[in-house]
Order: sequence, then C-alpha cells, then structure tokens
Amino acid sequence: MSSGKSEPLKIGIAGLGTVGCGVIKSLRTHGQALTQKCGRELVLAGVSARSRARERGVSLDNVTWYDDARQLAQSNEIDVFVELIGGEEGMALESVKAALSSSRPVVTANKALLARHGTKLAELAEKNGVALNYEAAVAGGIPIVKTLRESLAGNEISRVYGIMNGTCNYILTRMENEGKDFADILADAQKLGYAEADPTADIGGFDTAHKLSILTSLAFGTVIDFDSVYVEGIDRITSADLEAAASLGYRIKLLGVAVKTDTGIEQRVHPTMVPRHSAIAEIHDVFNAVVVEGDFVGELMLMGRGAGEGPTASSVVSDLADLARGGAGPVFGRPAAELLPYRRAGMRAHEGGYYVRLDVPDRPGIMAAITTRMAEYGISLESIMQRAPEGEQGGMHGVSVILITHETTESDMRGALEVIFSDGTASEKPQMIRIERA
Amino acid sequence: MSSGKSEPLKIGIAGLGTVGCGVIKSLRTHGQALTQKCGRELVLAGVSARSRARERGVSLDNVTWYDDARQLAQSNEIDVFVELIGGEEGMALESVKAALSSSRPVVTANKALLARHGTKLAELAEKNGVALNYEAAVAGGIPIVKTLRESLAGNEISRVYGIMNGTCNYILTRMENEGKDFADILADAQKLGYAEADPTADIGGFDTAHKLSILTSLAFGTVIDFDSVYVEGIDRITSADLEAAASLGYRIKLLGVAVKTDTGIEQRVHPTMVPRHSAIAEIHDVFNAVVVEGDFVGELMLMGRGAGEGPTASSVVSDLADLARGGAGPVFGRPAAELLPYRRAGMRAHEGGYYVRLDVPDRPGIMAAITTRMAEYGISLESIMQRAPEGEQGGMHGVSVILITHETTESDMRGALEVIFSDGTASEKPQMIRIERA
Repeated sequence: MSSGKSEPLKIGIAGLGTVGCGVIKSLRTHGQALTQKCGRELVLAGVSARSRARERGVSLDNVTWYDDARQLAQSNEIDVFVELIGGEEGMALESVKAALSSSRPVVTANKALLARHGTKLAELAEKNGVALNYEAAVAGGIPIVKTLRESLAGNEISRVYGIMNGTCNYILTRMENEGKDFADILADAQKLGYAEADPTADIGGFDTAHKLSILTSLAFGTVIDFDSVYVEGIDRITSADLEAAASLGYRIKLLGVAVKTDTGIEQRVHPTMVPRHSAIAEIHDVFNAVVVEGDFVGELMLMGRGAGEGPTASSVVSDLADLARGGAGPVFGRPAAELLPYRRAGMRAHEGGYYVRLDVPDRPGIMAAITTRMAEYGISLESIMQRAPEGEQGGMHGVSVILITHETTESDMRGALEVIFSDGTASEKPQMIRIERA
Repeated sequence: MSSGKSEPLKIGIAGLGTVGCGVIKSLRTHGQALTQKCGRELVLAGVSARSRARERGVSLDNVTWYDDARQLAQSNEIDVFVELIGGEEGMALESVKAALSSSRPVVTANKALLARHGTKLAELAEKNGVALNYEAAVAGGIPIVKTLRESLAGNEISRVYGIMNGTCNYILTRMENEGKDFADILADAQKLGYAEADPTADIGGFDTAHKLSILTSLAFGTVIDFDSVYVEGIDRITSADLEAAASLGYRIKLLGVAVKTDTGIEQRVHPTMVPRHSAIAEIHDVFNAVVVEGDFVGELMLMGRGAGEGPTASSVVSDLADLARGGAGPVFGRPAAELLPYRRAGMRAHEGGYYVRLDVPDRPGIMAAITTRMAEYGISLESIMQRAPEGEQGGMHGVSVILITHETTESDMRGALEVIFSDGTASEKPQMIRIERA
C-alpha cells in the first residue's frame, strides 16, 4: 500500500512524437489522481528527441534535455526509461539495452523492436531484475498484454486472434459500406491521414504480424518467432469479395491468428471471413479487438482504439503506474529462460473452411470442371453461387463462381486451385479467403 | 521477479460450491504454469464449507478442514483467505473481517458483500496493509476490475456501462429470436438451469445493481453507494417491444450505467435500447460485456462469460496470482480514506432519448391527443409508428403507438406519460424504455 513509497518515480522519455506528447499530457492532466492511485508522484525528469526546437504543445520547462537517448537511458536522474523512438534497430534498440543493462526498468510502445528482439530483451531485463512493460505495443489502448500476462494466469490458452491494424479495418469497413475498390479507398484514407504515405507495413499485414508474434509468446509461453508468421495483406480484396461475403453471412476482416494445433502453433495474418453475427464482425473503422480462448475463462474479447495519441498514451501511463506501485512479473508472463521453443505449424497443414472466387468464362462444363477438381482433392462444398463479375451485368465476358468449402486442408485447397488455374478454367488467379470460426 | 519469493502461497478457501471447486481444479490443472508465472507455488492449505461429507469431484486429501470459516480466516496455516460463501451478511462478512483484521489478504467473488460493505472493508484492508481482490465479483471472467484499477490509471472516466447479468441477457436474446413472451422464456430458462427458482435478484436488476455500484467506485473514485442505484427489471418487456425495437434499428438489453453529469453521478439499471449496429448489441445469450469511456483511451469494451465455474474461477485465480507476485494497490484504486463522497444525480434529471409504447383504442384524435401532450412537455419526436398490438392483426381492440423521442429529461417524459394515461388516452400503463448512445 502507501507505506514507504513516498519517493517520486522519475521518468525519462525518448521520442517526443504524438505518443510521447500524449504521455506527458496524461501525466500532467491526471497527476494528482495518479499520485493517489500509485501512492507516489510520477514526475517527468528527462527527455530526448531529434529536434530540440520543434513546437510540441507541451512545456518542457524543468525537464532535462538529452541529445542522446542512450545517455538519458543510463542517467541517474531517472528511475524508468520510456522508449518511443520507434524502429526495430538503431537508437531504439541501443537505448533500451542501455537502460536495462544499468538496471532501469523500461516502458516501450515498439512492436517491431519486441517482435525482433523481445526474447533477448526479456532475458536482459530479468537478469538485471527490472521490468520491461509494453502494453502500448499491441492494440494501442486495449489492455491485452496485462490481460494475458496477469488476468488469464490460471488458463491454458488455445487460440488468440484479432483485428490489430486500424488502417486495414478502416479500409475494409469503407470498401464494404461504399462498394468502392481497394485503391480508391486507400487513396482517400491517405488523404484523410488514416493511412501512411507508404502503407506497406499496414496493408501488407506486417504491423499485425509484429503484434501477433508478441501475443503468441504471452499466450503460449514460447519465445517470439516473428519470422514464422504467415502474412497476407488486404490489397487483393475486391468489393466483389466483400459483397459476396455479405450475401453469404460473413464479413471480411484482416485477422492475426495464433492457434495451437497437433503439430505446433499456427501464426498467421490474412484476410479472413468471420460470421456476420459474431462480435468481431461488428468491429468497425479504426477500432481494434482481440479475442482470447482459455480453458477456464472461455471466450474473452477486448475492443478499443488501437492507435493514436490518447489510447497509446493511456497504455504507456498504465505501464508507468504499474512500475510506480511495484511488483512486476516476468516480461512475457514466464521467466524468459523458461520460455519454450516455438514449434511452427506449417500453413499447408492449416485446416478450415475457405471462400473461393473464380472468374471464369460463361460456357457449358465450367461448373463440372471446377467441382470435379475439388472432388479429386477431397474438398466438399457447402455452397456454390454464380454471379456476374464486378461492373458487368451480362455474361458476355464471363462470370464469377463463388464457393464456400467445408473444412479441408490448406494443402488440398491450394492444390485444387492450382490445377483449376493450370487447366485454363479460371481466367485470373483464383481468390481464396480463409474462414475463421468466431 | 523470482528473487526471494520461493515460499509457497498457502491458500484457504471458504465455500466449496461450483466456484470453489473450479478454483481448486484450476490451481491443480495449471499448478506448474502458475508456479512459473508467479515465481512461487500456489498451494491449497485449508478449506471450510457447510457439509464435509458432500462429494465434490475434487480431492481434499492433505488439506485441513475447518468447520468454521472464521477460524480458517485467522489460521496461521494460510497466507490468503478466499471467501466464496456468498451473502451480504453473516459468515461471509464475519470471515472476511476476521481475515483482514489478522492481516491476511482476501480474495472474494461476493458482489453483494462489496456493494453493502465495500468501503468499510477496503478501509480495514488498507489499515492492515493487505490486499482485498474481487475480480470475480463483477462480470465473472471479464477482467474489468483490473482494467479500471490498473490499466486505466491515466484516464478520467466519464461513463461505464454494461450487460452484467447473463440470465437477463439470455432471456432477452431468446425472446427476440423466438418472438415468445417473458413468462414463457423465463419458465424454460428455469428448466434449463439458466435462471434460478427465485429469479428476483437477476430479472429484477438487483444483481446488476450490486456490480454497478462496485464499478462506480472504481471508475469515479467515490465511496460505494448501492442504495442510490435506480433499478428497473426486465419483467415488463414484451416481445412486441423487442420487435418494435428491431424495426427501429435497436436491440433491448438490461444495462447497468454509471455516468458523470453536471449534477453528480447517475447509477441506473434498466432495460435499454442500444443501436443494433453497436458492438454491445451483438452480445448474445449468457455473455456479459462492459464498456468504459476514458478521456485518453476513448471507448474500451470487454466481453466474455459473466458467470459459471470456469470463468469465475479464472478471475479468482488471477487475484491469487497477483497476490503471489506481490505489489497490490489500494482496493478501489485510490486509498479508501481518500474516496470521495458519492454525489447522486437524481433519475428525474436524467437526459436522453426514449422509446414509448402506448396501447390505445383505434379512434380518430388519438394521435393528436398524444402529440399535443408531448409538445406541452417540450418533447420532440424522432419517429412515430402505429402497429396492431401483439397477437392481433385487425384494429378492432386497439393499436400500439410507438414513439422515439429526441433527447429530453426523465422528469418531462414521466410527466407527459402520466398526463396521457390520466387523460384516458392509453388503455394500459405506457411502456417506456431509455435509449443509450452506444
């Protein structure tokens, strides 16, 4: 409780972009309440950033400026180092290592850093007896790290999945609502600031993959293995797919999924069909959501804002408040030295239902050619639908055949589609979207 | 971290019903993982329950039996006392007091106890320098207590609301899906074990009110004031209301809502219209969900199972794991002595939109009579709909007039409806359901 905790917690922040300034605003707006909640004051003691001159809308009076983040990380002026520099190497990595090596706890929002170096950094933190907190690194304001690390301690987790990239969810939501194509909505999203000038990390699924690799370690007690994540982006999704999904009772979301199977752990990021009447299907626009399945808790879903100044700052400040109160556990829930090796379940062994869209010429025998090939691979079909392809009303140029399969393996599915394509049955590369139970 | 924490945490459990046995199963199933996560073993040392002979499906070998829970609570054999007896007075209260007074931390799932005595018990816990954890008391497996107490430390909360009673949500979901009336579904729910033989606490809204009063304290830093909660149950909801709600783009849910207003804090439990395309509208069957709005985090929703052996045990074990790791904060997030008085915002000052159903005779002038009275009270209408009442196709016996109002006050709304009823315009007491922005 409050006894003996009257010394303030002196905070050093490296990186004064949107999030860094958000953290300073929160510490100041809620300073009195935080002192009350933590039993000690949280004080901004030092900062470091690239440009000292930049106007940031927060006062840095009485705060020591450091030109070098590594110097701040090791300064005796601070009790905790907050890394908001970004990037998986360079100054972010070096300053975090410097802080941990000098026995200073670290708070970071850097998913790329943890996806690449998380296990090593956890070992370094635990060797030096200090905490490494990173609530803001996964799904912004959503407390999924604390939930997995603390609240679900008495559960064995079987699956964790979620919408963890606001840009992708915003684009998919607008494509669905407006019936427009990917490129149009992306361009508009860039204009409005909902997508970066170079959107590859977001729409390519890599940002989601960074976050997923961290959740996998927390959920399954394994070392972080980012390179094993199967990644597919949203750029091949058309408004025709979204429309077909809707008429079949689904929505399409970019999900990150980590699931235990008989052969290991699947980590995959890809556009996914989810049942329209599931809670995850009602996560719209820039919102994020993460679902965890545990043997005691059952299904648990957390939904909120996955990015932005306020939500990210909220998580950083919660990490700081935890440090102020004391009593940190191991970085990834278990001691880093006891994390299990990650055993990869190959994507070809993945089992599930599939949505397939084949653009084919409108001539007799096409359906027979498709269904025969499916049967050869042992794939049984739940539904078949034929529609005029996007932008066309007649059947002059061809039709879209849309299939929903019963459960099959990725290997058989890919095999069947390759043969159908090489047969010349489909005029374009088939569209294939995995269905997830939700 | 792990240093100096090799002593096991010895646990005493009073009350061996479903939840108590669930906790024992979780401690045993996940014993090794818990030791790894907490840096020390969690050991069941003592138990107490009414009947020693009862078969419970868990072995109690090597566990000391206590006939009196108070004795267990004060025993030197245990480091933490888990109260799962239930009830707001009697043995539950006495044993919790005994444990705290003898400086033993307490874990409880008892919402009624906390709703009645929470502030006093928090004072006692903090005076003795021990923790009082109660994650399982609100919304079962959902970690809403930890989220409010720790994750949202850097936020000022403006509103917290949720579906916190599985029985009510199950009944409303089935009424909507099957078009049947309250009494039929309740009877069936009782047969299936989804509702108690005496369902008053659930369907009357009192169970939700207990939970809400705890969330109010956590969210707003005020003392618990259960008696100030405005409570309305679901027994007056008809399938006609659910159908009308659906056609107007809403669903009806029993919500507990705590919200800051200019005059104080509203605490209210009542059937509520929520927009059909909000995430909370997609919470079906026995699932619970809680939404929190904070100035930095924005909107955050947690969804999961609100009752049952597994989910409740999951939360109790998470409280135990926190104790094992050490570092507890104040019981209600702030020191009990610093909790603010609760300033009640009266229900008559509540502002919002309303759904109204008036059963009226089908004759000229009725619409004019209704709309004139509404206008006299300054209430403007968003939509008016007329339909044949339940079970009738013709207009021989009368019609239902359904109104959706723009924002108005509870006081004006009640005034207008009282006058309309005393005018003789409505043949039955008007139905009034509050609309909540979600």
